[in-house]
Amino acid sequence: MTNDPKKTLRLLMPQWQGGHLPAYHFGAQLLAWLAPPASGPIAEVQVDLPTTGGLPLEIGIVGRSALLRQLHSAQEILNEQTPDRVVILGGDCLVDLAPFAYLNERYEGDLAVLWVDSHPDILTPEHFSHAHAMVLGNLMGEGDADFANTVKRPVKAANIMYAGLDEMSPGEQEFIERHGLRKATPSELAISSEPVLTWLKATGARNVAIHLDLDVLDPAQFRSLLFANPKAAPDAFAGIPQGKMPIADVVRLLRDVAQIADVVGLGITEHLPWDAIALKEMLAALPLLGTSNG
Amino acid sequence: MTNDPKKTLRLLMPQWQGGHLPAYHFGAQLLAWLAPPASGPIAEVQVDLPTTGGLPLEIGIVGRSALLRQLHSAQEILNEQTPDRVVILGGDCLVDLAPFAYLNERYEGDLAVLWVDSHPDILTPEHFSHAHAMVLGNLMGEGDADFANTVKRPVKAANIMYAGLDEMSPGEQEFIERHGLRKATPSELAISSEPVLTWLKATGARNVAIHLDLDVLDPAQFRSLLFANPKAAPDAFAGIPQGKMPIADVVRLLRDVAQIADVVGLGITEHLPWDAIALKEMLAALPLLGTSNG
Repeated sequence: MTNDPKKTLRLLMPQWQGGHLPAYHFGAQLLAWLAPPASGPIAEVQVDLPTTGGLPLEIGIVGRSALLRQLHSAQEILNEQTPDRVVILGGDCLVDLAPFAYLNERYEGDLAVLWVDSHPDILTPEHFSHAHAMVLGNLMGEGDADFANTVKRPVKAANIMYAGLDEMSPGEQEFIERHGLRKATPSELAISSEPVLTWLKATGARNVAIHLDLDVLDPAQFRSLLFANPKAAPDAFAGIPQGKMPIADVVRLLRDVAQIADVVGLGITEHLPWDAIALKEMLAALPLLGTSNG
Repeated sequence: MTNDPKKTLRLLMPQWQGGHLPAYHFGAQLLAWLAPPASGPIAEVQVDLPTTGGLPLEIGIVGRSALLRQLHSAQEILNEQTPDRVVILGGDCLVDLAPFAYLNERYEGDLAVLWVDSHPDILTPEHFSHAHAMVLGNLMGEGDADFANTVKRPVKAANIMYAGLDEMSPGEQEFIERHGLRKATPSELAISSEPVLTWLKATGARNVAIHLDLDVLDPAQFRSLLFANPKAAPDAFAGIPQGKMPIADVVRLLRDVAQIADVVGLGITEHLPWDAIALKEMLAALPLLGTSNG
């Protein structure tokens, strides 16, 4: 596997509307600050700044028009830059839609997609109004037509596998069974990466794109997640599956995958650094440091 | 109160040896990134980078020679810049030693010191080997002579008050009673800032320096603290008092203080952003993002 860093695009996409949560915007900025320096070009999708008011529900999807505008901007950047590989720093989960669709076209279907997530992301506006929970369905050509139709070459089900997914709703379960999507649970992956490697070899794909939703991590070990919001009520996320993977298992899995396929896409999403947000706001309000003090 | 921003120095001091914990070094960098832009000059104390090995215990203090070297560097910067006001972004608690001593000289003793902390910071090498727990004692001219002697004009006990301090050891209690140091507990400050404002007026001081050890905050609400390390054993901090203040109470207290005195010093210390450290390390280890992957 040759790896010319000049052909790897780093795409910053501080999108927050897909989860209807302004904190994703700052989370993307901190994520970009924490990431190793890029060795190739960097591009940023222009995203509307968060506002205090809520976003409109537009034909079943909150923030539909802003999300579509940003999706098209990402497509334009990709078509202009024509990278071989893309690192995406989100933002909510939906940020991977344009890049993964681009990669499947770029490699003419010779692409496997590893979805490292505690949620299957195949909902539709009939179930839910936040588009970040719909992105993998869109990549398969399903769901809302405005989003799904941006995927010229849908990813075939056999080339998709979930890692870190465990519990899910009956509707999600039905979708996964109907399409025959593979999955490896956190406890299976705690033993080894073997289930994923076996699937990856069976696909025959030489290229792999990896979606890493940080919420696959155990919120007791990594607290910069939706489910670890210190201001949330104790029962705020009752019934919603939470991540169970240690960071070390995720790192080992992705490195194992890179040993047998060319990682051409990697998206890091759903970073919600509550402490950094609270500290930034606190510092701005203090005398001598903040601007509003005499 | 006039406030010419040109006379406020921002002093970055990513000191970690005073707490013998490399994470303070990165914590200082993230703190500086989160802070509002400086409106005056910025200076950084050169600090040895953390190493994997432990630091030597030198005559009762871990890292004594490095800490003294850094203390003298901070003094040199202050004497050269002669600021009217100083914002200090640490690093461990000891970072406030040189700036607060400088300010008490600069204002010829017309300085009150508000110590917002869950620990009294008056230990000596007879009790403990980490110098960050000794800094207020040093500012009073007590403790290890190499540190205390850098304070040309010790802060008088009547001009010192603790905020957020609650439980303490019998030795600490004895010290506080012997010197007649005032304190307001988290529950008193939850009602109002009045105990601090009454003390501040009684001192007659026109200038105040505020030490804000972030560990005064409740670790259930703000987790970037020593006591909220997700990798620590459940009993790792048994018997050590932890912070109990909400961020909002700290902000209100400091803003109330700024209404009746000139805040000429503000030190933010002990920032330990565990998630950001873990995420940075994770990103560096991932394929396509990290440097060690093919």
